[in-house]
Amino acid sequence: MKIDNDFFMKLAIDEAWKYQLLTYPNPAVGCVVVKNDSEILAIEAHKEAGGAHAEVNALKEAYLKYHPNTILKTIKDSFKIHEYLIKNHNGFFNDCTIYVTLEPCNHVGKTPSCANLIKQLKPKKVIIAHKDLNNVAKDGQKTLEEVGIKCELGCMQKEAYDLLFPFIKWNSNSFIFYKMAQTLNGTIDGGKISSNQALAYVHALRDKIDLLMIGGNSVRIDKPTLDARFVAGRAPEVLIYSKNKVFEPSIALFKIPNRKVTISDDLFKLLDYKFVMIEGGYTLLEKLKEKIDYIMLIISPKIKVGLNAINESLDLEFEIIHENYVGPDKIVYLKRIK
Amino acid sequence: MKIDNDFFMKLAIDEAWKYQLLTYPNPAVGCVVVKNDSEILAIEAHKEAGGAHAEVNALKEAYLKYHPNTILKTIKDSFKIHEYLIKNHNGFFNDCTIYVTLEPCNHVGKTPSCANLIKQLKPKKVIIAHKDLNNVAKDGQKTLEEVGIKCELGCMQKEAYDLLFPFIKWNSNSFIFYKMAQTLNGTIDGGKISSNQALAYVHALRDKIDLLMIGGNSVRIDKPTLDARFVAGRAPEVLIYSKNKVFEPSIALFKIPNRKVTISDDLFKLLDYKFVMIEGGYTLLEKLKEKIDYIMLIISPKIKVGLNAINESLDLEFEIIHENYVGPDKIVYLKRIK
Ligand SMILES: [Zn+2]
Ligand SMILES: [Zn+2]
Repeated sequence: MKIDNDFFMKLAIDEAWKYQLLTYPNPAVGCVVVKNDSEILAIEAHKEAGGAHAEVNALKEAYLKYHPNTILKTIKDSFKIHEYLIKNHNGFFNDCTIYVTLEPCNHVGKTPSCANLIKQLKPKKVIIAHKDLNNVAKDGQKTLEEVGIKCELGCMQKEAYDLLFPFIKWNSNSFIFYKMAQTLNGTIDGGKISSNQALAYVHALRDKIDLLMIGGNSVRIDKPTLDARFVAGRAPEVLIYSKNKVFEPSIALFKIPNRKVTISDDLFKLLDYKFVMIEGGYTLLEKLKEKIDYIMLIISPKIKVGLNAINESLDLEFEIIHENYVGPDKIVYLKRIK
Repeated sequence: MKIDNDFFMKLAIDEAWKYQLLTYPNPAVGCVVVKNDSEILAIEAHKEAGGAHAEVNALKEAYLKYHPNTILKTIKDSFKIHEYLIKNHNGFFNDCTIYVTLEPCNHVGKTPSCANLIKQLKPKKVIIAHKDLNNVAKDGQKTLEEVGIKCELGCMQKEAYDLLFPFIKWNSNSFIFYKMAQTLNGTIDGGKISSNQALAYVHALRDKIDLLMIGGNSVRIDKPTLDARFVAGRAPEVLIYSKNKVFEPSIALFKIPNRKVTISDDLFKLLDYKFVMIEGGYTLLEKLKEKIDYIMLIISPKIKVGLNAINESLDLEFEIIHENYVGPDKIVYLKRIK
């Protein structure tokens, strides 16, 4: 196996995917720091809006690898990590290459500018997978090149684009993803399919999204709560997709204090929200396939007889964008190609 | 992400899985060479019986990383690579750690002993995931420790065991795996499901196995050839699992010169062969589930209406042992747990 720029960038991309969608409204970004062309010092990611950027996490870990007992270990605040590294780096990064999936940010927001930090640490090279298209944060590469740091753009650009895509949609209009849980052979009924770890992951997503859409039939049959209690998160606003506006008011999802629930069959409503998760099965998928950016398929490694795509005339083809594990289950991210 | 022994061993295990089953009758083995505790010099695997062992491939690549223009680059023969490294290493490996998924072999067979090679290169440390249980090749660790090389056994042992399991079965009795091809939602009919890359992979496996078993109905309906033409390989011996011994002699699989075909419903016949692949769908899987070591599920990223597990009373649970990509498709290795 070749240990080249693609290899290191792939480590950064995979690390970033672990936090995909959970960084909303920020992009998922990964960063790897390599000393002397092949010594991996750190593989880190941006984990949550407000938290340190991927570069900051990675530069911190890289420095700690050689200076394990410094006070940096206890510093969590981005501004303070910047300050510490700028004061103490002492040329440590001069023989390092930084791999980052997205062009380092160039402006001071909730966290300080990564381009400005890297500029002062003077690494040998910065390899960037994808350009930052955001008007506010862009041109980090220019900032680095102005002080003579060598930059290279476009390593694993396609993979980095797939990683960045939700962020691009958040910035332009809406990112809409369809979450479906099934067994290996596509069974979607029969009680609890997913593991507790997978359910906790779904709850973590519900805590982040602006809107959860669900079909009227699912609400009537499953009587779900649709909250985020597994992660002590907030219950998202709900849109029940249904022509028929009559629902038993005793259904759990209506009982959550301060939650807005809308019942409508107007799909244009989705575009009023930046970050939408749809939970459903094959019937709803067939109906909404044109509106969906990504499908998140949670696959439980079982083969079971049960409800499948049998009543639909589904004929969809996908590209597998990425996969993670959550506990014993798989999470597969799909993009429709047909 | 922690960059520790597990991280490096995982790279070795993943590399080995790329050649899983294709190394028959040898075990799939991976090896990573790391300099100065964190600089990855090589990630290699054993690729085919008769070819160089994983350690030899990795030590060669590692040496070439620092000595790219030496004649070693052109040497393919294991004995000659050993000879070259022993003559020219000049202490190069003294600050290296070798991660290997299986205890280095301790005897000279078609290829020379890896333990003997490593002994002379004197690396800082050898980290071994799984002990070699084979009576002929075992005790490589002892050979290394006798000359004072530090060894550590058991890093990622469970994952290494899953990797080694087919080899363990080949040595004790038979390794039987079930190959199934399906869409994301479990559809197994409707013409060509898998990509050409996945088909070529199946043909490469057919070239290696001792016996291919298939159900009588599949033969009658699909009229398959069951050869290995995509890789210009040999057509395997076939066992048609069927009570009814009458088949149209014009079916393609009967036309292959020098191929043995047996028609029988005696499953004990399987145990006469060391390496058996069964190709089938859900019905045969239900019938044979107790006899199968691994399932290899080739998943094509499509959702299609079609034949699924609907007529069976299947209720199986698996552990996902490993996954690879072949072209746009996924290969998932499963072990039944229920
Ligand atoms: Zn930043
Ligand atoms: Zn060997």
